[in-house]
Amino acid sequence: MSEIRSSLAVIGGTGNLGHALARRWAQAGYEVVIGSRTAGKAEDAAARIETASGSVPATGLTNEDAAAKADIVIVAVPFSSQEAILTAISGELAGKLIVDTTVPLVPPKVARAQMPTAGSAALSARAILGEEARLVSAFHNVAAHKLQQDIEVDCDVLVFGDNPADRDSVVELADAAGLRGIHGGPLANSVAAEAFTSVLIGINKRYKADGAGIRITGLGGA
Amino acid sequence: MSEIRSSLAVIGGTGNLGHALARRWAQAGYEVVIGSRTAGKAEDAAARIETASGSVPATGLTNEDAAAKADIVIVAVPFSSQEAILTAISGELAGKLIVDTTVPLVPPKVARAQMPTAGSAALSARAILGEEARLVSAFHNVAAHKLQQDIEVDCDVLVFGDNPADRDSVVELADAAGLRGIHGGPLANSVAAEAFTSVLIGINKRYKADGAGIRITGLGGA
Repeated sequence: MSEIRSSLAVIGGTGNLGHALARRWAQAGYEVVIGSRTAGKAEDAAARIETASGSVPATGLTNEDAAAKADIVIVAVPFSSQEAILTAISGELAGKLIVDTTVPLVPPKVARAQMPTAGSAALSARAILGEEARLVSAFHNVAAHKLQQDIEVDCDVLVFGDNPADRDSVVELADAAGLRGIHGGPLANSVAAEAFTSVLIGINKRYKADGAGIRITGLGGA
Repeated sequence: MSEIRSSLAVIGGTGNLGHALARRWAQAGYEVVIGSRTAGKAEDAAARIETASGSVPATGLTNEDAAAKADIVIVAVPFSSQEAILTAISGELAGKLIVDTTVPLVPPKVARAQMPTAGSAALSARAILGEEARLVSAFHNVAAHKLQQDIEVDCDVLVFGDNPADRDSVVELADAAGLRGIHGGPLANSVAAEAFTSVLIGINKRYKADGAGIRITGLGGA
């Protein structure tokens, strides 16, 4: 715990995926700020993390204030909110590493891949934030209800981004959350993992599975 | 071997993926016709299958004649040839099950997902063949050089198509080739597996892996 770690803001940290990741990072010793549209809800979510893990610090703020306060900003919001929330926090992101987790699910047919015009949610994010943004996408395929439990989640985390050093940082975050992070290549490749979430939703239904995931094989000891 | 099985035409069956699949299906007892642009090359490839597996019947014909002769037509050609070859054999496909294996790799950046205008190679195939075609896509992620060997290939085969019964037939073909076929949902979902091939190519390079693959987890005994 004496090691200096980056501070993390989880935008949409009251949602299932965001809260589960925030809790795992707080337990791993990261300073975590929960962001939400209203500070009150963010504070409640942060308090629940403290209860679960003892005295680990977690605070709750509005999305904008959370983004301003942290070194790394993880965006865990529904696709329908992605554009509005990225736009709202964009003034706080200069130079920071942004981790977008958005999967472009379009209800009611969430088991059907329906990519946005930009090609993927990650490329939509880049269109909103601009080419100079330090943007990485990840955490598309992990089942939030499994992450919420203290169990091993049998799913790899593919990490996409045009800067390998930034991808490294997010691979490290995946590992810190008890997952296996794997470099998935440039941001343009995010379409693979984003579309795969619809595939997994369909598999859960067809095979009566409780949170199907993906594993990369053939890596040896990696 | 007394069981009646569908006859299979492998279009592009002189290529690495096509030939490896044809060999495995012939060994599983299927009647296999190898298609190529020239009948001579197809005959040579068919002869190599007979040599490898004893007296199993395999024949070689032009792509058009091979498609005409079989119940199920597997298309295993490079992306750059997909449109020309599908157009050439389209007159022979009425009512037949078509299995497109095309991955839209665009050299030299094959580790970067570059989806065609239609959204995926599978949707390109549908645009060429028409809505009434019995079209399924599969076998995007298996490494051909592993399939060519008599080893277990540690990679699932996602099967996409709008007709579940046709997907069932292709899941069965994957199983017959010693792989695990899994329903991946509608043809629109093919983008996930197609883009994933670029991800795997990048992973092979970065992690010095010899044919990384994917496995679906959480299916239990499925």
